[in-house]
Amino acid sequence: MLINGKPGNSISIRDRGLLYGDGMFRTMRAVRGEILHWPLHYLKIQHDCLALGITCPEEALLRVEQDTLLAQHPDCVVKLIVTRGMGTRGYAPPANGEPTRIWDVSPLPQYPADNALRGVKVRLCDLRLAMQPRLAGIKHLNRMENVLAAAEWHDPEIVEGLLLDNEGHVVEGTRSNLFLVSQGVLVTPKLSRCGVAGVQRGRILAWALQHGVTLQIRDVGLEEVRQADELFLVNSIIGLWPVRELEQRRWLDFPLATRIRHELEGRST
Amino acid sequence: MLINGKPGNSISIRDRGLLYGDGMFRTMRAVRGEILHWPLHYLKIQHDCLALGITCPEEALLRVEQDTLLAQHPDCVVKLIVTRGMGTRGYAPPANGEPTRIWDVSPLPQYPADNALRGVKVRLCDLRLAMQPRLAGIKHLNRMENVLAAAEWHDPEIVEGLLLDNEGHVVEGTRSNLFLVSQGVLVTPKLSRCGVAGVQRGRILAWALQHGVTLQIRDVGLEEVRQADELFLVNSIIGLWPVRELEQRRWLDFPLATRIRHELEGRST
Repeated sequence: MLINGKPGNSISIRDRGLLYGDGMFRTMRAVRGEILHWPLHYLKIQHDCLALGITCPEEALLRVEQDTLLAQHPDCVVKLIVTRGMGTRGYAPPANGEPTRIWDVSPLPQYPADNALRGVKVRLCDLRLAMQPRLAGIKHLNRMENVLAAAEWHDPEIVEGLLLDNEGHVVEGTRSNLFLVSQGVLVTPKLSRCGVAGVQRGRILAWALQHGVTLQIRDVGLEEVRQADELFLVNSIIGLWPVRELEQRRWLDFPLATRIRHELEGRST
Repeated sequence: MLINGKPGNSISIRDRGLLYGDGMFRTMRAVRGEILHWPLHYLKIQHDCLALGITCPEEALLRVEQDTLLAQHPDCVVKLIVTRGMGTRGYAPPANGEPTRIWDVSPLPQYPADNALRGVKVRLCDLRLAMQPRLAGIKHLNRMENVLAAAEWHDPEIVEGLLLDNEGHVVEGTRSNLFLVSQGVLVTPKLSRCGVAGVQRGRILAWALQHGVTLQIRDVGLEEVRQADELFLVNSIIGLWPVRELEQRRWLDFPLATRIRHELEGRST
């Protein structure tokens, strides 16, 4: 672990990341000493810091820190947290705050190969996401909704829960973005009111645009999810998992999901 | 500062309080070595922990810790944070988590006496609170909305911003609860969709019920706020401040607010 460039595993109890969840984070995959798709992750770090009014750490600085970290842990899950830093008492951000940079590593999870090949079982969460356009898309540290949603089930067969918003739109999984193939069109929920716009989702959008795959980013209703030709979940750690089972519905074939998975795994951007 | 009963000023970067804002807090006032209204604060700690599924620390334990702390700092602002504790990677709460107890102190703020006597100037925030019934009322650590709202203004004359929800109801201040006197009736917004139900608000509700003051807890619109006979803000640190100015509206007299302020200051519960 590194805190502001120095080895360490703790932060001040006056860091605003703890006090208010005032910060953002990224969970990334490192392979042979390199964070996969780092340029895209850094763009997202810039975007999220800008949206929160946090001074974004320089890329060169983060590069130095990740090199230090990955020299010891070349293959791992890497988490970077950027908080607004220390604060005086009170919610208002300090005028000249220095962000806190926190790096942590954990072992790469060993998921069953069938998750990607044959798909996974998912459920619908009871919790409905609140709609906050000011925070939509951002991977900020206010993740209580995800915690409550993930606490809803204990069946290890179920690998993810789908989240709807207050108005009944299907938005995402608790830790993944959602795509549908619906009447031959690739569809993903728009994330203008809630949800996290992940890097893996962005890669798929870019791929679809480059390859002339018809793509729609829009509101998605539950009935459309149930009727979809294919359904799949993505994030930077799992990659892409098709959905095999949701409530009474079963899916056996995922031709577009499989094609996209192969494309993503073979690409460096 | 005390962390789990031991002197310290830092917590693990793997504490879920930092990772997800997975916890709750209280900001309290200590006078001559005692936290004012501690039994009410402890009830609220129990309530919030229960709502979040966090094991609530025993009162006796918290009493011992606060006595240790207040022996050195008899008059101060005391903050207690209870997080879900350390976690494995992922949102789902660990089965046998040990909550983290974090105590911190800071000097009592020196507010101008006129804030309580002649009232304060407030503004309306642009940010609209998202509506999440599962978290409404709870003083959890996901306070990004408060941070963004408090960042909206820099004029030191303005001491608080009022927050409306997505549907236009007036809910609270960024760090206080709101009361109105409207056509002779004491009114405070209901907090079933968003907002924090503070201890000072609870004391006023109890006082009003005991003294036969007509009280309504319900949705409040902006026009009603503008037309109110009196408007006042409360929390455990400021006590009670009437509103003197909001947009074009001015208030000069606050008879019920002043009466309630005197009552609250003179009571031990």
